[in-house]
Amino acid sequence: MSPAKTLGVVLFPVFELLDVFGPLEMFGNTPDIDIRLLAPQAGPVRSAQGPQAFAEFSLEEASHLDILLVPGGFGTRALVEDEEFLAWIAGRAQTAELVLSVCTGAGLLARAGVLDGRRATSNKRAFEWVSSQGPNVEWVKEARWVRDGKFVTSSGVAAGIDMSLAVIERLTSTEFADRLARRTEYEWQRDSTRDPFARIHGLVGPSETEAR
Amino acid sequence: MSPAKTLGVVLFPVFELLDVFGPLEMFGNTPDIDIRLLAPQAGPVRSAQGPQAFAEFSLEEASHLDILLVPGGFGTRALVEDEEFLAWIAGRAQTAELVLSVCTGAGLLARAGVLDGRRATSNKRAFEWVSSQGPNVEWVKEARWVRDGKFVTSSGVAAGIDMSLAVIERLTSTEFADRLARRTEYEWQRDSTRDPFARIHGLVGPSETEAR
Repeated sequence: MSPAKTLGVVLFPVFELLDVFGPLEMFGNTPDIDIRLLAPQAGPVRSAQGPQAFAEFSLEEASHLDILLVPGGFGTRALVEDEEFLAWIAGRAQTAELVLSVCTGAGLLARAGVLDGRRATSNKRAFEWVSSQGPNVEWVKEARWVRDGKFVTSSGVAAGIDMSLAVIERLTSTEFADRLARRTEYEWQRDSTRDPFARIHGLVGPSETEAR
Repeated sequence: MSPAKTLGVVLFPVFELLDVFGPLEMFGNTPDIDIRLLAPQAGPVRSAQGPQAFAEFSLEEASHLDILLVPGGFGTRALVEDEEFLAWIAGRAQTAELVLSVCTGAGLLARAGVLDGRRATSNKRAFEWVSSQGPNVEWVKEARWVRDGKFVTSSGVAAGIDMSLAVIERLTSTEFADRLARRTEYEWQRDSTRDPFARIHGLVGPSETEAR
């Protein structure tokens, strides 16, 4: 049996609820994963949707993280200007063995500089804003999620669930990830390249997709 | 413009994360819905997956609720024996205009007596336990969600997202619900009768489904 891995989720004011709790439904039902909710200040943290999650630790207090998960939400717009926060992200991304983002969380990773020279994706409706945070990132417009080395970035909100199951599949087994999806009655989209929302939000034209 | 509706979500120790935050992603992005996280005691409430949500109000302190949402999770197993809790559920279900459950939350509604004589569904893997909580409920084995009057009960975990979008569609418009699903990059399953998990978990046989 492998030792437990610590997964740290960075909360911040105006984070997007499902970016956090879609992935945590899946990781929290996976053996040997210890989840830590972290935030600039420990305590209740209000989401973009109103409800509050409870961060047990401040960023400063956080122990070593094996897996770092960065969610999105409108709160990212202020954080891309927060040098202290970005330095924390850059430091933890360097020491973690896996770095995950959901939605506009990729904008925070990009601005922290850790995606330079890598392939990544993000929310399709906020794609222009996110990609402007990382001019040296190879942004992939049409993807449910993108893996490049230890970095796995997902598209908007609900896409984080599909990405998480794919990550869990690699950490455990296809059989376990399948069972987890069945138990949560979730129809897992396994194909990281299938992304109807890229077209819906105008990032790829009909001809570009059909030509494949 | 219609006045805001208050949606109260009942948290309890060992609630299932996605049962709560799948629906709240959708309701929290709908105009004129005020969300209140409630729990037997106000403060941090630990989920089945570990992370804690923050209940701002105790059940006693809760104001009038227009919409009541009851999630599931393993914590329901203890609560079906908690008379005070069930009496609160029964009272609030009576005065609310809409009563929603996700997953094994239907077991709490059933045990509180408010589903008697009505059609309802629940988590497919825990179906036997849930249905034993309400012998006078007409349990529907194969359904993503079931509406009967003001009660809307969904199947396990992820099914709560599809149910919520259907409820939001009726509260707002098809156009709004569609836009919400697109913005959250969620492929909304609109057919309440489509339920592959009923067969996966052995509640209906192949012939029963195919004979339709």
